[in-house]
Amino acid sequence: MSEAIRTEIYADNAATTKMSDAAIEAMLTVMKEQYGNPSSLYSVGQNAKEILEKAREEIASVINASPSEIIFTSGGSEADNQAIRSAAETGRKNGKMHIISTAFEHHAVLHTLKRLESEGFEVTLLDVHEDGIVRVEELEKAIREDTCLVTVMFANNEIGTIQPIREIGAVCRAKGVLFHTDAVQAVGHVPIDVKELNVDMLSSSAHKFHGPKGIGFLYAKKGVRITNLIEGGAQEGGKRAGTENVAAVAGMAAALKETASRMTENAAHMTEMRDRLIDGLIKIPHSALNGDRARRLPGNTNFCFEGIEGESLLLLLDDRGICASSGSACTSGSLDPSHVLLAIGRVHDVAHGSLRLTVGEDITAEQVDYMIRNVTEVVEYLRSFSPVWRDLMSGKTQFIL
Amino acid sequence: MSEAIRTEIYADNAATTKMSDAAIEAMLTVMKEQYGNPSSLYSVGQNAKEILEKAREEIASVINASPSEIIFTSGGSEADNQAIRSAAETGRKNGKMHIISTAFEHHAVLHTLKRLESEGFEVTLLDVHEDGIVRVEELEKAIREDTCLVTVMFANNEIGTIQPIREIGAVCRAKGVLFHTDAVQAVGHVPIDVKELNVDMLSSSAHKFHGPKGIGFLYAKKGVRITNLIEGGAQEGGKRAGTENVAAVAGMAAALKETASRMTENAAHMTEMRDRLIDGLIKIPHSALNGDRARRLPGNTNFCFEGIEGESLLLLLDDRGICASSGSACTSGSLDPSHVLLAIGRVHDVAHGSLRLTVGEDITAEQVDYMIRNVTEVVEYLRSFSPVWRDLMSGKTQFIL
Repeated sequence: MSEAIRTEIYADNAATTKMSDAAIEAMLTVMKEQYGNPSSLYSVGQNAKEILEKAREEIASVINASPSEIIFTSGGSEADNQAIRSAAETGRKNGKMHIISTAFEHHAVLHTLKRLESEGFEVTLLDVHEDGIVRVEELEKAIREDTCLVTVMFANNEIGTIQPIREIGAVCRAKGVLFHTDAVQAVGHVPIDVKELNVDMLSSSAHKFHGPKGIGFLYAKKGVRITNLIEGGAQEGGKRAGTENVAAVAGMAAALKETASRMTENAAHMTEMRDRLIDGLIKIPHSALNGDRARRLPGNTNFCFEGIEGESLLLLLDDRGICASSGSACTSGSLDPSHVLLAIGRVHDVAHGSLRLTVGEDITAEQVDYMIRNVTEVVEYLRSFSPVWRDLMSGKTQFIL
Repeated sequence: MSEAIRTEIYADNAATTKMSDAAIEAMLTVMKEQYGNPSSLYSVGQNAKEILEKAREEIASVINASPSEIIFTSGGSEADNQAIRSAAETGRKNGKMHIISTAFEHHAVLHTLKRLESEGFEVTLLDVHEDGIVRVEELEKAIREDTCLVTVMFANNEIGTIQPIREIGAVCRAKGVLFHTDAVQAVGHVPIDVKELNVDMLSSSAHKFHGPKGIGFLYAKKGVRITNLIEGGAQEGGKRAGTENVAAVAGMAAALKETASRMTENAAHMTEMRDRLIDGLIKIPHSALNGDRARRLPGNTNFCFEGIEGESLLLLLDDRGICASSGSACTSGSLDPSHVLLAIGRVHDVAHGSLRLTVGEDITAEQVDYMIRNVTEVVEYLRSFSPVWRDLMSGKTQFIL
């Protein structure tokens, strides 16, 4: 290790973020003082209810929604499941059983669609091309008479590419098709105005913007029929049963308020740091940036390096105090290469050697340079005894990148 | 008000409980220091994973389960939904589409069963009799060749009556039918050994035993087929998608460990206080205890008073610093009388005048006496201008209680 003191650079903000002090403080206040059940009539319960509704207003205002359009869920996955299942149920009733999505959605979307396929739905997954961006004209062509839902993520969780949500929204509106977007990676990081974007449903998760884990929300435009994923009590306007997680909701609101208020400065800084990181890593021979360089989240960098294994790379970087990932944390147990990288046309071998570095608001130029230096060294080191790399160097196999 | 200083007696522990210091402390530590995603490979993530798995072990041991049999959910409602839907899915595959439950289950169970009825399942709801206890012989008779699930709550959330879970478990085991119990009101308050009780699935919620809201667990015996309610990532053994709520899980484990370790003393004290409360309230003319007096949760008291409205009673008690409810918090918005009280044979008018007082571990005799005095006064006051009461007193209508 080159540094004498243990370095820790958390560069996996797409997996989860550190909770902000404001979020922790808001949760703590509720946990200690406002323990009531918001559904209770007495004042202790009504105080909790007030906190819940104030948070709902704050959250709604960040995306230009009405408070009544916000349903609190246990996170982004639940919101995705509920949004898609709701649209599917309406579709089934109207004899419309076709859904359009993309090949590189989060598994919360893809696996829900798979279940729906087994229940008789037909799913079209759009190509996302080499740049990781859906083509609106292809989407438009894919819409049929029996299409009940278009679900396209706002920004990809692995390669960070931002989709043409406004254009997709306009097409869906014109064609009269419901439009859902998994905005888990986007909320708090890029400006979102659901009205302007013509979004009917949107999923979000607090722990991606310095809020607590285990809480998120589903925005559902007034008039969109939402069915329960969790049946039971009459909470959340009868759309999501279970005692409301008041503390976490307060924490989510505090985190989002703060992140949203600093969005412009944060994005400018993170984009600068991201570009510095990309400029440094691209110098590694036979490396490639995954996804469009400009149309991506401010903090997202995702690279492929030929001739190495992603897992070894991560473990050696961890030794050097760098928290990084090869892609989605949700599938880290799996040995399969990322479905996202395959979707943008990376072959299996190359997709295996991927590295995602997602920096936070507090990242410094020194930390970026430390990451560039160490990734470069570790890649070189791993290649030094990689049989795949040896074959590439000897010309026995061909370089792709 | 008789007291000079503002009294606050929280007597709605069945709705939710105050978080214990241990639970808050455990959550705070995770929120501040262990922000990693448990699915991440680097040490920050693996530390979070360790906390999660240690909590799983602690929780499993309290109910004599194996850690691998515990699935963390966002609460009791989600656990109920998932348990029942899983059994139903297995049942459908085997051509067994009959489910047995009771008329006074929580709505998380009843509404899920209603959805399943609309999907072709047949549901038998057992009578719970005047004492609020299911008869095992009636259950046994109701089991058919095509019964795929028996779901009976451990203890009722409104009247606190404890069901013959061991006997039901034995019958289900003998007949080869899956047995699920909604133990949301029971875990942490009465001893539970899932092996001894022959329970296949059990639902629990942390905020009922001084843990945080928004977290719970589903116990599913090894070999019982569980299907996802929330599809997506590979968390929780692929059975429940979504980034794990590490802080809340740690808080739940800390709360349960503490509650379980003091269960005997707590139960003895609460039972004594409960009986003192019952003895006092039963002296109010034309009042009646709902549910069996002995076979009920240590802290539960539930009364009907003839000639009054439950809501007015609650508001006036709130003025006197007593947090009470008329029944389930989950349906407090509803004007319908409690389905639980109707199930034990209370007529509509009487069921409307119900009062649930669920005391906690720290309740004192002075507080109990304060509640007896104030409930007595308020009931008398409300009756003084109740037309229903006037008709009863004049003999125009007949007393029932």
